[in-house]
Formats: sequence, structure tokens, C-alpha cells
Amino acid sequence: MKKSLKAILPDGFKANGVACGLKKSGKLDLALLYSNPPALASAKFTTNSIIAAPLIVSKKNLKSAKNIQAVLVNSGNANCFTGKAGIRDAELTCAYVARELKIAKNSVLVDSTGIIGKKLDIAKIKQKIPELVSGLSCSGIQGAEKAIMTTDTFSKEVSVSLKIGAKTVNFCGIAKGAGMIAPDMATMLCFIMTDAKITKRALDKSLEIAVDKSFNCISVDGCMSTNDTVLVLANGTAGNKIISEGKGLQDFSEALDLVCLELAKMVVKDAEGATKFIQIDVCQAKDFQEARRVALNIANSALFKTAVFGENPNFGRVAAAVGASGLKIQESQLKINLGSLKGKQVKLTVGLSRGKASATVYTSDLTPGYIKINAEYN
Amino acid sequence: MKKSLKAILPDGFKANGVACGLKKSGKLDLALLYSNPPALASAKFTTNSIIAAPLIVSKKNLKSAKNIQAVLVNSGNANCFTGKAGIRDAELTCAYVARELKIAKNSVLVDSTGIIGKKLDIAKIKQKIPELVSGLSCSGIQGAEKAIMTTDTFSKEVSVSLKIGAKTVNFCGIAKGAGMIAPDMATMLCFIMTDAKITKRALDKSLEIAVDKSFNCISVDGCMSTNDTVLVLANGTAGNKIISEGKGLQDFSEALDLVCLELAKMVVKDAEGATKFIQIDVCQAKDFQEARRVALNIANSALFKTAVFGENPNFGRVAAAVGASGLKIQESQLKINLGSLKGKQVKLTVGLSRGKASATVYTSDLTPGYIKINAEYN
Repeated sequence: MKKSLKAILPDGFKANGVACGLKKSGKLDLALLYSNPPALASAKFTTNSIIAAPLIVSKKNLKSAKNIQAVLVNSGNANCFTGKAGIRDAELTCAYVARELKIAKNSVLVDSTGIIGKKLDIAKIKQKIPELVSGLSCSGIQGAEKAIMTTDTFSKEVSVSLKIGAKTVNFCGIAKGAGMIAPDMATMLCFIMTDAKITKRALDKSLEIAVDKSFNCISVDGCMSTNDTVLVLANGTAGNKIISEGKGLQDFSEALDLVCLELAKMVVKDAEGATKFIQIDVCQAKDFQEARRVALNIANSALFKTAVFGENPNFGRVAAAVGASGLKIQESQLKINLGSLKGKQVKLTVGLSRGKASATVYTSDLTPGYIKINAEYN
Repeated sequence: MKKSLKAILPDGFKANGVACGLKKSGKLDLALLYSNPPALASAKFTTNSIIAAPLIVSKKNLKSAKNIQAVLVNSGNANCFTGKAGIRDAELTCAYVARELKIAKNSVLVDSTGIIGKKLDIAKIKQKIPELVSGLSCSGIQGAEKAIMTTDTFSKEVSVSLKIGAKTVNFCGIAKGAGMIAPDMATMLCFIMTDAKITKRALDKSLEIAVDKSFNCISVDGCMSTNDTVLVLANGTAGNKIISEGKGLQDFSEALDLVCLELAKMVVKDAEGATKFIQIDVCQAKDFQEARRVALNIANSALFKTAVFGENPNFGRVAAAVGASGLKIQESQLKINLGSLKGKQVKLTVGLSRGKASATVYTSDLTPGYIKINAEYN
């Protein structure tokens, strides 16, 4: 398997990013991803019950369309908590893209990130659709990456290629995060494009597994977004024998795991105000879910996160967070190994003496920078 | 009902506070509460499964003793995550007090607050027990209040008196908090003394109800302590007809509710680094538990708390926190009323359009001050 930290679009995919004026700064804020031939799609969305309008529309289109050809994404406005008008706006933007590309309306997905509760100015979007479409290119992915950013300080991209059977299969993933799951300014979005030929069932299953071990294992502030999306598009241009099970599926899954994990870690590294990247390994658990629950409880402890910021090796805060996770555990069963807190990478290992399963969770420290960013944002 | 924000001990109670050297600053750090006649006791402890040694010993004594006569409390060290030696230390300190007061060992309760995971220096405590006991007095409660403080910036005390039947019944409550439920430096402790004569069953039930509406309705950082304790001692010196049910119990309960709620609010007002006191009213819920769960989810949202600190009326963060609480709710059902964020008191009202129950939760904003205190503490 070959990994590169630069986005290289697989065959058949094009992308572009433009500035349509949703961001006051005038920076890029409208991205388009396009695939010809039409691609198989699989997606995971936020489980927040307050869900943004574009996700409602995208879910509907994913259900009704056999394939997906385009994904429109804007930053600067989440189009969430905007009522029926918000849903109509999301549908209209799909229609603009469909008309310009001469494709079916339901083959367009839409995503938004930015402030919640403000009406999306779709006139600004509409006006820029022709330029967005005419500028689509194989090298346009870097523009698209920038256009989906909010408080991100660097763009997040990765490419992976591997042999499946006799053919080379390629993956390209981009993401935006910043405050991770910060509902209004830092929705987590991830788009993965691959030229693999794969069955819908195998694609869905692989994505489920990959997300569970990556994006579901990171936390910055414990706040769940209304717009979180991870989408994978597979357009089959690699010409491989269709993947459905066995070794082919295993290889595909490993590559998708790697793409998701690399992007998830970048999201944590770019967390709002973070000065440290923290890896939490919980082992000797009964099962993966138990290990992850304990690890996330530590990752979401404001006291643990401030202790790491202060380079204060306070293992008592770890013990208290484990005990508060709902796990019935004795003090004598708990083994805590908190390495040096100097430097930018911090590792914590927690043993539960209950079983053989483990989970790794990534998080960041809690700093005055996080508070400054989130207190001043509007 | 008469309320005073000064602690006045009911008949039969005495208290004292001394400095034994557990706090590096040399401030008061050892408190003793004493009742003669022996008092009926009821207590609520943390539900964290990592539980401090003094709580293990106190629970045991509460089970085996018919009445309680003394409560020893130290600050500066939580005696938690200290293994079997910690339990022996807690038992030894009970024994020192029992010997000096010439009372049964299991009629002494013990509590600790301070850093987790460090051995308690009981030689320092032992040496000061004679002075602590000989100095017990009716006016010693103010010293005891100071001796249980950690990062608290003011002492928390309240007295309430009311007529029950022909007799006046008095309550005196003291508490310490600061970071509330901050496991190592800011355990929440509350001690309530009353001269009421009451059955054990009625006392337990009243405390359960009072705590549910007060200490279980506040949150500063969502971190659960290993040492949290709310204890009520009732010594019966008021000479009232024993309270077991009906109007007498209702009056007693109202007074206990008031004592707990006043102290709980003081804990939030003195939260680490806080600049705002936030009241969250969630109404139109199916039941109290649902309303409180939603309110606590908002209270624990780092994004909401930083928005309040920044006086940034970002109701989208409230909507996202409600949606993340696990409640299945439509956007159109949710009514959010976020008042002015200027000033020290902030009020948020959330309607769920689901029923008639409501709950009120108190919290504070999340500030650089909180991070500074918790990053530097050790």
C-alpha cells in the first residue's frame, strides 16, 4: 500500500473551489466534486437529532438515486435550524448544479458548514455555479479542500493506492474539522473518492468499519455536530474485478481504514487552540465498545485536558474519568501509564484488567486558545 | 420559614477548624463537627466507581452504627486511589477522634478533599486531634467552613428555621465546591446539621429528594468527583414530635430543599474561573428526568459555555446540545429563549413541546481562568 499526504484524484473525478461571498473574508467557500462515470456512494451522517437541511436532502437523494455524480459543499453557513426554507434552499442548490452539469437532480449531494440558524444566501451560490462547473479539473481538489475549511489552519488531504488483483486501485480523501464536532463553526466533513469497482453492500460495510475506528475514535470538545458527514464515492474506473468479499474486500477495507484514520488524526492535530496531540490507548477491556467508551470519557474530561495543557501529570484525573464512565471497576484493577507531557505528542495507556480488547482514541488538550476562538466566533 | 446566609449551629452541635499542615499555605485544613446527643445520619455519596477511602469507611460506619456523633474532614489531600493503606489511614483517623472524644469508633465519619493519589499524612492529623477536640464550640462552625475549602474563594453557609408543630426546628448547612465535581482539587462536600427529631426513613427520603433538585442539578465541568458527599445529621434537640409523614414531613422537606439549593447555587457561583452564573430552565418535557438530562447536556457543552463567556448569543449551540442529548426531537418542536448575556446572571429557557414537566439546572461559563487554575494545580 502506498500513502501520500497530497490529494491526487483517481480517474474520472474532477473538483473545483471558488469564492462566492458566504465567507466575509472573501476566501474560497464553495466546492464541487464531480465524477464521470457516475459513482456508487456510501455515507455516514451525524446522529444528532437536530440535523442540518443539506443532510436531509442528501439522505433523500442517496435513497432514490442509483448513483451519485456531484457533491456541492459550502462553508460559512451550516444551513441548520433553518426550517422548511432551509430544506428548499438545499434542494435548489442541487437543482442549480444538476442543470449546469446536465445530470439528474437526485444525483447531486449537498453539504454545508458554518454558523447555525442563519438563512443560506443561495443567490450567491447560484451566481457562481457556472464558474464552479466550468473550472472543474483533475487538479482542482486543492481548491475544493480550501473551500470547505472554516477555522482549520491547514488543509487535510491523503492519497492511498494499492494492488487489488491485477489492477491498481486509488483513494483520495479530503476533510475539514478544526474544533471537531463543534456544531456551528467546525463541523467535521470528509469526502473520499476511489476508482475501485465494488458492490454497494461491501462499500457500506467497509465504510461502517473504517469510520468506527477513526472518526468515531476522536474527540476535541465532546460536542456533536448537526452537519457531520463522511462520504465515499466509488466510480469503478480502476477496472478491477468487482470487490464483494474475500481478499479483495480485505485489501480495500485496509486502504479505506488508513484514509479515514489519517484524516481523523489531522482533524485532531488541527483542533481549535490545541497545543498537544493526545493518544489514549485503553486495553484489557471486555470488548472494543467498552474500551472506546472509557477512552472517550477520558478524552472528554475537561480536567484531564487542562492537566495535559499544563504538563501536569495528574493521573488522579484519569482515574476519576474512568470511574465516571459508568464502568464498575475496582481501584486495584486500574493501571494508568501517563508518559511525559513535554512535547507535542502525548500518550496515555490505561489497563482495565477485565479482558483482551482495546481501543485507541485521539484528542487534544483544552487551552485558552479554544476558549478565545469559541467565545469570539459569530 | 426564616433563612440567613450565616451558619448558626442548632442546639447540641459544636464545630472547630485548625491547621495541621496538609495545605502548604498553612491555612486551616482540618475540621470537626460534633453532636451531643448522638445524631441520626443520612448521606448521599458520589456514584463514581473509583471512590475515595474515607467514603468507603464512612459508608461502613453508617451501616453499622445506630447514630453518628462526629465528622472529621481534611482538605489538601483526597485520600483517593491510595489502595488498602488509604482505607487503613481513614480508619485510624476515625479512631483518633473516637478516643479523644470517648465515643465509639463507628460513630465517627470521615471525609477528605484535595489531590488524588497521594498518601495522606495522618501523623499531621493525629497530632492536632487534641487541639481540634478541645476547641469545639458553638461558634466554631466558621473555622470548620474554612478548613474544608480548597480553591473556594468564599465560604458557603446557610441557616434556616421554621415551626414544625409547636416547636422551632433549625438547620445549618455548610459546603465547599469551587470547580464542582473537579475530582482532585474541588470535590463537592456538604454537611447539614438540624435539631429536628425525625425517623430514619423520612430523613433518607427527604435528603434524596432535596439532593435530586439541588446538587444533582448543577454542573461546572461535567467531571464527577471521587469524594462527593452530602451528609445530614439530625440530633432531635428541638424536642418536636417525631416527624414521619404528613404536614410535618412536608415542612421539613421544604426546609431541607432550601438549604441544599442555596448551597448548590453558591457552589456554582464560586466555580473555578467563572464570570457568569447561568440558569437553564427546560420546560415542556415528558418528565423531570428528561428535562434535567437536556438541561445538563446544555450545561456541559463547552461550546455553549464559551459562547456565554464571550457574550455571544449563539442559540445554534443550544440546539446542537439538545439534539446531542439523545432526545428524539424535531427542529420545529424546539423553542429557545436566550436572554441578554451582559451582566453576571444569565438565563436560558428551552421548550421541548413534549409534555408538562420542567427542570432547572445551574452552571457557569467556561473561561481562561478555569484552564489556568486546572492546568497549574498539583
